[in-house]
Amino acid sequence: MSLQKTDTIENAREKFIGRVGTAAPEIERVPLDAASGRVLAKDVYAEGDSPSFERAIVDGYAVRAADTVKSAGSDGVSLTLRGSVRIGKAPEFALASGECAYVPTGAMIPDGADAMVMVEDTSAAEGRVALRVAVAVDFGIAHRAEDMKKGQLLLSRGTLLRPCDIGALAANGQAEVFVFAPLRLSIISTGDELVGVRDTPTRAEVRDINTSALSALAGENGYRVVSACVLRDEASVIQNAVLAALEKSDVVIVSGGSSMGEHDLTARVFKEITGEEAIVHGIAVKPGKPTIISHCKKTHTILIGLPGHPVSALMTFTLILSWYYRRVTGQQEALPTPARLSRDTQGTPGRTTLHAVALSIEGNRAIAEPVSGKSGMITTMTRADGFIIIPPQAVPAFAFDEQKAIRSHDIPPPQLLEGTDVLVYRY
Amino acid sequence: MSLQKTDTIENAREKFIGRVGTAAPEIERVPLDAASGRVLAKDVYAEGDSPSFERAIVDGYAVRAADTVKSAGSDGVSLTLRGSVRIGKAPEFALASGECAYVPTGAMIPDGADAMVMVEDTSAAEGRVALRVAVAVDFGIAHRAEDMKKGQLLLSRGTLLRPCDIGALAANGQAEVFVFAPLRLSIISTGDELVGVRDTPTRAEVRDINTSALSALAGENGYRVVSACVLRDEASVIQNAVLAALEKSDVVIVSGGSSMGEHDLTARVFKEITGEEAIVHGIAVKPGKPTIISHCKKTHTILIGLPGHPVSALMTFTLILSWYYRRVTGQQEALPTPARLSRDTQGTPGRTTLHAVALSIEGNRAIAEPVSGKSGMITTMTRADGFIIIPPQAVPAFAFDEQKAIRSHDIPPPQLLEGTDVLVYRY
Repeated sequence: MSLQKTDTIENAREKFIGRVGTAAPEIERVPLDAASGRVLAKDVYAEGDSPSFERAIVDGYAVRAADTVKSAGSDGVSLTLRGSVRIGKAPEFALASGECAYVPTGAMIPDGADAMVMVEDTSAAEGRVALRVAVAVDFGIAHRAEDMKKGQLLLSRGTLLRPCDIGALAANGQAEVFVFAPLRLSIISTGDELVGVRDTPTRAEVRDINTSALSALAGENGYRVVSACVLRDEASVIQNAVLAALEKSDVVIVSGGSSMGEHDLTARVFKEITGEEAIVHGIAVKPGKPTIISHCKKTHTILIGLPGHPVSALMTFTLILSWYYRRVTGQQEALPTPARLSRDTQGTPGRTTLHAVALSIEGNRAIAEPVSGKSGMITTMTRADGFIIIPPQAVPAFAFDEQKAIRSHDIPPPQLLEGTDVLVYRY
Repeated sequence: MSLQKTDTIENAREKFIGRVGTAAPEIERVPLDAASGRVLAKDVYAEGDSPSFERAIVDGYAVRAADTVKSAGSDGVSLTLRGSVRIGKAPEFALASGECAYVPTGAMIPDGADAMVMVEDTSAAEGRVALRVAVAVDFGIAHRAEDMKKGQLLLSRGTLLRPCDIGALAANGQAEVFVFAPLRLSIISTGDELVGVRDTPTRAEVRDINTSALSALAGENGYRVVSACVLRDEASVIQNAVLAALEKSDVVIVSGGSSMGEHDLTARVFKEITGEEAIVHGIAVKPGKPTIISHCKKTHTILIGLPGHPVSALMTFTLILSWYYRRVTGQQEALPTPARLSRDTQGTPGRTTLHAVALSIEGNRAIAEPVSGKSGMITTMTRADGFIIIPPQAVPAFAFDEQKAIRSHDIPPPQLLEGTDVLVYRY
């Protein structure tokens, strides 16, 4: 096994899904007020018509539209006030020609009427209402079933519920909603150089970033962290931690120890536990190359080795695990932001590059300004709004970068040119 | 007071802020693992250099770059292996010319070295390491303070914290973070036609949508709902509910009862309580026109009358209250998505129109497809991804809509033409 035989992102995803399948997470029922931000687990059909009656959507007078049109050639129309409709009550009369009825917003339109005149376009006196405008048929009226028709598909399985979707579920009488449960995640951050967030690193040490950052990212993308720890780079220690996490986790992440060096422990530990080679060992992506994907058949647990660099770890989580939760719950991909690249930007020979960019709006367009910084620099991400994807086969560079070329066996790096339309995936 | 004298959105915001001020919410300290999605309340400066030492960002051998360049004209360079650096420990030797040292990712670069050669580009045997590539100075090394320099501004007050920001805070040793507290919100949904989500509406009744939908929207935009109720349209009942909510709320919303009809109770109730005319009574926006903004000086409570239509209520909340929380916490506006309009789209004469659109990606551009549907139809929103803004003075229509023109006193409606670049604000 060698990191040289890396997979493309697409290949890695295919192999991963090919082995672990696409079974959906468990379904749980939550109260409507806890459903926003969750993923709908079952299609929802309209349980009745909404509105269930002809309904005024303005305050004013229900009329026959034909009665109002006369106002065009004359001083205006005046109609007989037949009565008032009370909101929440069915009217006890129908409207004849020449008549109108006061109907507040939300109340039922009486039979015989086919339009509303807004109250500010009228003046009422002594049982008569003078109109200052004519209206077209249907003006100011929401028809029965115009919003939802009984039996109609209202929201599909896989919908990430927003406040307006919560509103539609409320209208449909759903005090409880079936949503997908989060997947249970254990995070094991490894590295002899790591100290806790509250500790002061001595020389050659750094604070552990991955536990905190991955937990936050996981929580926003369908995972619930059930355990997290920071461990030394020792095979037996890591192996015991993974074994302890297996039963209670759908996914176990080991961050760090996944690249080619002497301390490439994660691959060995995963092989020891699963009895098999990794499904994926290395993805041709920057950052994120030394990613390992394994699967423990006995406990149906996905084992992921992420790079120790925080940026690589976060990006790989996004590419593999956020993608996986969306895939198995039927969610659509998050919509990227189209933008224009502000300057030529280099990728990496042979690898897909995820390049950080900052977004700004100019007129009605967006500008993506590449943010430079080495892999692993968390401030590269904090200064950016998202990333663009530079494919390995992007436009070859016009300018030849000598230093890079020496390092890369004379392959010119892929490049996107200033002014290129790009899609920005938000952090 | 008349709804005819409506304010533009900008005027309404100015008057609102002019009266209630821009004092920031209270500051609270939360554990780092609860800070994602919150708004940072104080600038954060780097407490030390990160990394705090010259650090390898690849697995391999630390070298003097000058020693490797010789490989270009020969069979390659072979260097003496001086030793290994243990991760988390300072090296106990310095590198001389012709020497290299094994350094795993994350470990400290020994003095004397100025570049790394990746382990996969080498072969080691009998105390010597053969290099297959040359490297440039700095390759594979993160310099001291390259990520963060002590004293440097790391994150600004007003930052909406993302997982990568949580990572930066972890690197900076912040186990706790100062964030703005949510504002306390009470929601009073009024309407004689309203029944609860669990109830079955009889003829002329509908289920209350606003409590659920506004609560969800509020929770995502800086508010914490402290009370919610559905009430009949009766002045004394509403007034008592508002009075009961005043002390415990920063903002009280009354949805419904805010337009021109007989049941325009909200304005009367607010005036009774505050002793003053509303700050804003009517905004020239569709949907959302009958919006009322008042302020109770005694309790420093903002009183908002929202339209009863769910879509209007949600849009007005977004325009006024989501905006307000961002304003007082120093947050930037959420970045919109630039898109191309798929067909001519009409606005409303004299009013700013917020038109629902569905987004799709074609190539590296986005297409905004207008979603039609009457104001108040929640499925107009659920079928859309966001809204575009059609200003009252948008390009006049080429085609003259006769029905609309009669209604609108012959003012041609504003219009945006197919192919126009628009900004889409996501729901």
